[in-house]
This record gives sequence, C-alpha cells and structure tokens, in this order.
Amino acid sequence: MKSRSTCVMRASCPDRPGVVAAVTGFIRDQGCSIIEAQQHGARGEHFFMRLEFEPASGATVTPEALEAAFRPIADSLEIAAEFRDMARPMRTVLLVSRFGHCIHHLLHRWQAGQLPLEIAAVASNHEDLRAFTEWCGLPFHHLPVGPDTKPAQEERLLQLIEDSDAELVVLARYMQVLSPRLSDALAGRCINIHHSFLPSFKGAKPYHQAYARGVKIIGATAHYVTTDLDEGPIIEQDVRRVSHARSPEELVTIGQEIEASVLARAVRWHAEGRIFVHDGATVVFD
Amino acid sequence: MKSRSTCVMRASCPDRPGVVAAVTGFIRDQGCSIIEAQQHGARGEHFFMRLEFEPASGATVTPEALEAAFRPIADSLEIAAEFRDMARPMRTVLLVSRFGHCIHHLLHRWQAGQLPLEIAAVASNHEDLRAFTEWCGLPFHHLPVGPDTKPAQEERLLQLIEDSDAELVVLARYMQVLSPRLSDALAGRCINIHHSFLPSFKGAKPYHQAYARGVKIIGATAHYVTTDLDEGPIIEQDVRRVSHARSPEELVTIGQEIEASVLARAVRWHAEGRIFVHDGATVVFD
Amino acid sequence: MKSRSTCVMRASCPDRPGVVAAVTGFIRDQGCSIIEAQQHGARGEHFFMRLEFEPASGATVTPEALEAAFRPIADSLEIAAEFRDMARPMRTVLLVSRFGHCIHHLLHRWQAGQLPLEIAAVASNHEDLRAFTEWCGLPFHHLPVGPDTKPAQEERLLQLIEDSDAELVVLARYMQVLSPRLSDALAGRCINIHHSFLPSFKGAKPYHQAYARGVKIIGATAHYVTTDLDEGPIIEQDVRRVSHARSPEELVTIGQEIEASVLARAVRWHAEGRIFVHDGATVVFD
Amino acid sequence: MKSRSTCVMRASCPDRPGVVAAVTGFIRDQGCSIIEAQQHGARGEHFFMRLEFEPASGATVTPEALEAAFRPIADSLEIAAEFRDMARPMRTVLLVSRFGHCIHHLLHRWQAGQLPLEIAAVASNHEDLRAFTEWCGLPFHHLPVGPDTKPAQEERLLQLIEDSDAELVVLARYMQVLSPRLSDALAGRCINIHHSFLPSFKGAKPYHQAYARGVKIIGATAHYVTTDLDEGPIIEQDVRRVSHARSPEELVTIGQEIEASVLARAVRWHAEGRIFVHDGATVVFD
Repeated sequence: MKSRSTCVMRASCPDRPGVVAAVTGFIRDQGCSIIEAQQHGARGEHFFMRLEFEPASGATVTPEALEAAFRPIADSLEIAAEFRDMARPMRTVLLVSRFGHCIHHLLHRWQAGQLPLEIAAVASNHEDLRAFTEWCGLPFHHLPVGPDTKPAQEERLLQLIEDSDAELVVLARYMQVLSPRLSDALAGRCINIHHSFLPSFKGAKPYHQAYARGVKIIGATAHYVTTDLDEGPIIEQDVRRVSHARSPEELVTIGQEIEASVLARAVRWHAEGRIFVHDGATVVFD
Repeated sequence: MKSRSTCVMRASCPDRPGVVAAVTGFIRDQGCSIIEAQQHGARGEHFFMRLEFEPASGATVTPEALEAAFRPIADSLEIAAEFRDMARPMRTVLLVSRFGHCIHHLLHRWQAGQLPLEIAAVASNHEDLRAFTEWCGLPFHHLPVGPDTKPAQEERLLQLIEDSDAELVVLARYMQVLSPRLSDALAGRCINIHHSFLPSFKGAKPYHQAYARGVKIIGATAHYVTTDLDEGPIIEQDVRRVSHARSPEELVTIGQEIEASVLARAVRWHAEGRIFVHDGATVVFD
Repeated sequence: MKSRSTCVMRASCPDRPGVVAAVTGFIRDQGCSIIEAQQHGARGEHFFMRLEFEPASGATVTPEALEAAFRPIADSLEIAAEFRDMARPMRTVLLVSRFGHCIHHLLHRWQAGQLPLEIAAVASNHEDLRAFTEWCGLPFHHLPVGPDTKPAQEERLLQLIEDSDAELVVLARYMQVLSPRLSDALAGRCINIHHSFLPSFKGAKPYHQAYARGVKIIGATAHYVTTDLDEGPIIEQDVRRVSHARSPEELVTIGQEIEASVLARAVRWHAEGRIFVHDGATVVFD
Repeated sequence: MKSRSTCVMRASCPDRPGVVAAVTGFIRDQGCSIIEAQQHGARGEHFFMRLEFEPASGATVTPEALEAAFRPIADSLEIAAEFRDMARPMRTVLLVSRFGHCIHHLLHRWQAGQLPLEIAAVASNHEDLRAFTEWCGLPFHHLPVGPDTKPAQEERLLQLIEDSDAELVVLARYMQVLSPRLSDALAGRCINIHHSFLPSFKGAKPYHQAYARGVKIIGATAHYVTTDLDEGPIIEQDVRRVSHARSPEELVTIGQEIEASVLARAVRWHAEGRIFVHDGATVVFD
C-alpha cells in the first residue's frame, strides 16, 4: 500500500449547532487541508464526524499534538475525538480455523497493497493454514483447544494479542465461540464474519437452514464481537440470489465468496477509522 | 396480454428413472411441441416438472382430454399432474388496506398486459383505494373489520372469494392477520407480501426494527399464506443496500418499491404455474 | 409530502483549505442547525457541498436573505452558492408518449408524498395517458408532432414549460429526440430515462440489442439531457440479472420496472438539490 | 473436489417436436437416472439440452459407448451430441501476466475442491506469479514477449497448450492481445475476463473511463475469446454500485473482486459443460 501522508480525525458528540464549524475551523487553523469529510447527525440525537486531512506542504503534525491542541474545543462541546496518522498501518492479529477462503482473500489484498494493515500474527486452533500463512511471510501460532483447555487457550490467545500490540483482531472464520471474558477484553476491536445474512439464521449450519427454508437470497454479515453471540453491531452485509436448484454445498461455496468480500470491506473500513458504533448499530462512512 | 395458445402441464412424483422420458413422450404422442420445459429432482427425493407446449397447427387440445389421456401413465408412475389452458387468465381477488403501492403496481402491469390475470374483485377493510380500483374498471368491496366483527367479515370475504371462483387471492398489503380457518380455506392459492427480508424481522414495523439493528440491506418476501404467520413457503425475495443515513421513513419508501416488484413476480409465476411447494419450501421455474 | 421547514444550501468552488469551515461557520452564525451535510473534493480539483439546515426555533430565514448575507464569503472564496427553501416543492413538467410505467410510478409516489414536486403539467405527443393524468387531477396537454411540425411543437412545448415556471422537466419515456435548441433551453433542468445501461446499447431497441448480444445483466440510466444524445451526465443507474431464457419482451418488462425506479430516484435527488454536474459527470449526495 | 460418478450429455439441434422425448428415452434405455436436466428452445429456432445422469448401481458407462449407442438417434434428428465422464476433471492451462487477483481466486477455489479442473500448467509473460504458482505445486512457464517476439512466443504458448492436452485455456488477466491465428486455434475453449461491463468501455483502462463518465455501477465480463477483440460471446457478468466518491484506484480494487468471481463462475460452468454458444450469444445452464 503506498504510504499515505494524511491524518484522520474521528469525532462524536451530542448533536448541537456549531460542531461542524468548530471542528473544521480547528483543522483550518492547524494549516491542514481536508481531503474527505463525512458526518451524520440523525441517529439517536448523536453526531458523528470523520475528517481526513493533510498538513500544509512541508509541515508535519502528530496525533498527539493535534489532540492537545483540540482539547479546549473538545471540552467545551463535549466532543470525543481521536486522531490517527494514516502513514501507520493498523496492527492486526488474524484468527482462523480450517476454512481458508477469508484469510486467502485478506492476505492477497494485503499483499496487493489494498488493506492498510500490519499483520502481527496469525493464530489458529488447527494447523491447516500454517503453510499459506508462512508462505506469506507471517508468523503462525498453533493454539489448539479442547473441551477442558478453552480457558487456558484463550489466556494464551489474549497474551499473544496483547504482546502484538494488536489494535484489531479479525475472526476470519475462527470457529470457536469466544468466552464473555475474551469478548469483553476485545470489545470494539474484534470483527467477526458471520456466514449468514443476520439476523436470519443465527447459529450453526446457516446455509443448510437457508436451504431447508427455501430462501431465494443468501448473504453474509461482518459485525463487531460482543458477548451476545451473533448480535454485535453490523458493519457490512452482502447477498446473492440463489434458486431452488442450488444444493446446500453450492450455497456454501457461494456464501464463502460473499464472506471473504464482506469481511475485507469491514476490515478496511475499521483500519481507516470509518466506523462508529452507537446504541448497537454502526455508522459507516464508506 | 396477448392471448397464448399454449398449455401448461405441471407434474410431480417420487423421483425415479424414466419420468422425463414418459412425460415428454406423452406430449410428443399428443402431437404437441414443447415450448419450454423445466425439471428439478434433487430436493427431498421428489421430482418436479413444468412443460409448456402447443398443439400441432390446426389441432386443439383441452386440459380435460389431456388429463384423461395421461391417466394411465400417471397411475403407473405415481405422477400428480395438472393441465392448464394458458389462453384462460387466472381468476384473482386482491385484498388491500390503505397502502396503495402494491395494488398500483399490480394493476398497471395488468393493464399493460404483463400479468395473465382476470381480476374478479378487489376487497378492502378501508375505503382508500376505491377510487383507483374503480378507475381501473374493477369492482371494489368495502368489508370493514373491527375487534368483534372479524369472524363475520372473514365469512363475507370467503363468500366473495368463492362467488368469484377465485383461483388466486393476493394480499397486496392487506393489514389483517387471517384466521387459521381462512388461511386453511385459501391454502396453496393465497400469496402475501411481507415487508421484510424473512426470516429476519417478523412481525410489526420491520423497517423500524431494521433501522434499530443497523442492517445494511433491506428486503421483502412474497410467500404463500399458511396458518403459521410469516412462515409460509417463500416464493420470491429481493433486497436493496441501505446506509446508516436512511431514516426509517426512507427505508419504508425503498421497501415499498421492493415489495411491489417482488409481489408482482410471485403473482405472475403463480398464474403461469411456475411454482411448486414441497416440504415448506418452493421450487420456482422462472 | 409533509412540509419541511428546512433550507438547502448548495455550494461549489475551486478546492482550497478553509471552505468547509467558512461555510459551516456561516450557517452557525445565522443561528441555524445543520441537519445533513455532505461534501466531495476529489474530482477534478473542484469542491462540492450540500447542507440542509433549519433555523433556530421561532426564527425564519429566507433564501434571499441567506444569499445576501453569504455574498462576502462567496466572493472571497469564489464559491457559487444557491439556497432553497425546502417547504416549497419543485415546479415540474412531465413529458410522456405512450408507455405509462414511468409516469404511473412517479405519480403514485408523488401522491404518497414521497416526491417533493409540484406538478404543473403533463404534456404528450399522444393521447394515451390523458385518462390517468386527469384522474390524478393534473392538466394534460396533447401536443402532437409530425415530421413537418416538430419545430412548431417544440415551440409550444417550451412555451408551456416557461408558462409553468418549471424548474424541472422530466422525460418519462418521451419518445422524441429533443432538438439541440430545446436541449439547450432546458440545460441542467431536464432529466431523461434511457432504457439501457449506458454507455452500452445507445439508440433504438436496446433490449433487443441486449438480447442479441446475450448480456447477462440489463439496466437503465437516468441522465441530464444535453445536445449530445444519450451522452448527458449520468445521475443514476440500476441493473438486474437476466438469463438466456428471457425473451426480448420479458427483457422489456423487467427493464420497465428498473426504468421507473431509477427515474424516480433521479427526480427526487434533483428536487432535493442533491446533484452537482461537473465536467460531464455528476456528484450525487444521496 | 469429490469425484463425481456422473456423465454429462450435451445436445443441440434444430428445434422440432420429439427431441426431448427421444433423448430422455435414450438415457432411460441405457439404464441411467437423470440427476439434472435443462433445455432451451427459444433462441434462433435452435434447441439446446444438457443432461447429467448416473448409471444404474453397479453398471458402468463410457462416453464412447454412449456416443455409439446414440448415433442412430443423432442421425435421424440431426442432433449434435457430446458425452463426458464427470469423474475426469478438465485439463486446463492458465495464462497470467502480473495481476494476481484472478489466479489467486481460481487456485484457492481449485484447492478447496470447488473447481473440477486438472491444471496442467500456468504460463506468463512475467515472473511475478511464479512463487504463488509453484507454492500451489503447479508448473510455471515464463514466456516473455516483446514487440518482435510475439509470433515466436505465441508459437511456444500454443505448443505448451497442445502438449498439455488442454481442453480449456483461461486468460486470468493475461495482458496480451492474442493474434487472430492463436484466437482461431483456441476457438471455443479459451475464456477471457474483461475488466469492464461489456459492451461498455472496451479497450484500455476501463475503470478510468468509467470514472470519467461518472457511471454509478461498474462490472466485469467473462467471455469466449474470438478474433474480434472484446466481442466474443458473453458467458457471465456481474456488477457493483459505486458512487462519485470512489477514486479510479478504488474502482480498480472493487473491479478486481468482481473479475475474480465472474471468471471463476465462467470457468466452472465451462468445465461442467453448462455453456452453449450460438449465433454470438451463450446459453448457460447454471
């Protein structure tokens, strides 16, 4: 990915007059030029804003300096703000099991420079995807799990994530339910791909459920992991039409393609600071 | 709609070798030419087939004569068969309430000759759509319903349907739950449009549910009415992408367009004999 | 349509630092609250912005007063700005020929309060759609056209448009090519629906062209009319999958549904000030 | 891919009564059971049929024996028929250049058993994709090409294809225009992915053309290669909505995902004998 010289500001606050003017005035006063700006103010009386901007030619700005300079405005308007230097890709850990379609798609797009990630590690409860991971030049950690070893395995997993300074954990068809404790520890920075069009067909074998019910459209959903399984805030969804002639196995194949594509979009949006979560739903500035 | 000179044969039976050969051999032996043929054999070991054919030039065939001639084959192979003369449009009753988007779309397509229906009557529990119905030259029946009058109203409704010799009843956003008794009486010939992508968001105000959950895709579902509300066999579904920026009201508007389009497709397929129901799911020979 | 109490500001200018801050600061200083704001700065070094805002409770603002107050900022930053009171629906003339699918869809959505238009007149070179138009309570003007009478007919058409104070002219399957003179007179305020996925299949009978070429997807395009036939800036497009089994007539039916839906979206976006044209392409703040 | 025990029969002939009965009667008389059958008779008075069937338990049939047994029927009804044992995957050569998205998707699906191919070789005019190809355990042939060496390079390419007994050649973003001579030599067995929604935007840099024209939907097209560049029979197409906010680079990324998916579908359909070409268009029995 060609290095970006931009910064991203994410801001949210109770909706009130003057917020946009205050924030954009601040950016101007820092001598920066706005490249892209999006805001949304309707949902639940709350206001969300994302700005991508670049410093004046020759100047440099740091997230820390911007944050300090913005503090008086943040305090007076109750704005929660974050700044991020887009030259720095997001530290990420991938968790997988045996299905390879999601990690293959993610790593190929990452190799092609289309995902702004620094992939610190891949971990799995199976060995299947070691060869591909290592061929991509990434460390692979086999953390097997059994009925009695789940707490210990999650402990090692969390340790790995923390040791990696991971800002994002991607469950790329990791076929283990996270414990509430681990879900909590990863809150807001863990994305799962659900192999169904949520809220339909939660739980196991959704494509077989879809077949039995005779649905005419199948899909997949990327969402943040919460302790409430399959109920986390939805980030992205996509679908494809199917007919009665498709077998459950063919639905799985079609679904895998949708899953890989949906997950990659959600990951990119997260890494670019495009997603806000509020009240169980997301605002996505695509 | 320009009159068709074709016949449709619908056949279903336990799947076994030789069925296609037997059925298509029969059509050939009647001196008819197959225009369109579709079959499906995978679902639940059952076999389904639809043939559209026309008699040899100058000849005429009747559904009754075909049925009689086919009886020996039907008996030997356990084939349930129906024949229909496509020159005769399907007798239909529409039920509506106050929302006009579905009936408008259906009647405009019907006026343009794109739906092979003979619309015997429109009935409603409200007066709102009388003007448009009568402007289309169709009889409008106002059958109001209140908490105490539902059994009596359904009685009148069923009477109207039977008096009309209706082969199809379309719930074009008829906002009353049918009683199990009426559902049973209309089994297999009553199509509903559900203003949601089933099985998500059953019940009331699905677009508001979808908004609250933050889904990224909304849809609508046409299904046969069964006593199990919102669980009847799915005929057709469609969806459209939406973003966080759409209000619940905008979701309603977008959804109405999908509903009208999905319902019209389901009605046409039913009228052309393209739908089979088996084990709670449909086979649709589009 | 429930009356809105908002104003819309449309602004465009050469892209430069400080524009967003200046514009949003102006709105705040007028005591108004921003409801919705969108901007785009990447295409061709030009910047576009749409703001929807409402005055402080009890206050009123007029487009004229806002324009006057904004003039100094506009001058200093070279901003072209327009203000519009959204309580006032957009004066519109519809042109049709014989196909009814687009006008039916537009007028039903208009009757349902989903299009912020005041429809001043419907004009056609045929009588076919008089009954429906008049049933909707709208004046219908029959302006027949023949090989020798086209200039005179266009003169009457333009007169009707000007007499109606029309801000928008919608070609809802008006099957006449506008002369360069009329196209020029309507520049920027005339929307056409092209019955094809442009730039494929320009010209006549596109669905038959699509059939012959065996395409697997068909679509429709709404665009602004320019003197260069079928080449005006694209506002909106949509598509649907089709198979080899669809006849040209079925493609027409499917296409008509897409056309009606695409045209309605384009008309609403125009009426809400969501479209900017620059360098032959559009920016649409949906 | 789990080995299939089925045979596929592909038949086409001038449309006439009795063909379906004759063909399906033949299959029954061979003691085989039809698994899947599709036919199409409308396009150009020509009839197409695909049957997938399995021999009676314990029996074996060979394509050669079936062909011999069918010959009398074929002769009397002018049916062109082919039989194929689906236990044998299709011998395939892939041609690539530097872009990896299509070959990555194809080889991952092939490794997952979702494409019934035997990949004999990968050839390229660049070295970039050697590592991935060889990691997949496939032979990689570097056949560089320059302005003066094209005839010689094509000679080597064709030699490689013939030595491989390739029944299918896939241009998985092979960025060289084939000479008419090579196109002719590969007629009917060479699939290309065009990075555009044909017939729009033929030629170079279609995503940049699409951006300049401001289209709202982009797509990709898989087609058979003919001597008429970008005009071969269309096998499959897909699209995705885009907005003015997407840069040409983002359109490329989105487009690559569509390309990979569309090409994989086309390849599978070809390998399963689902595609017929007639009069410049395809019939696809999906």
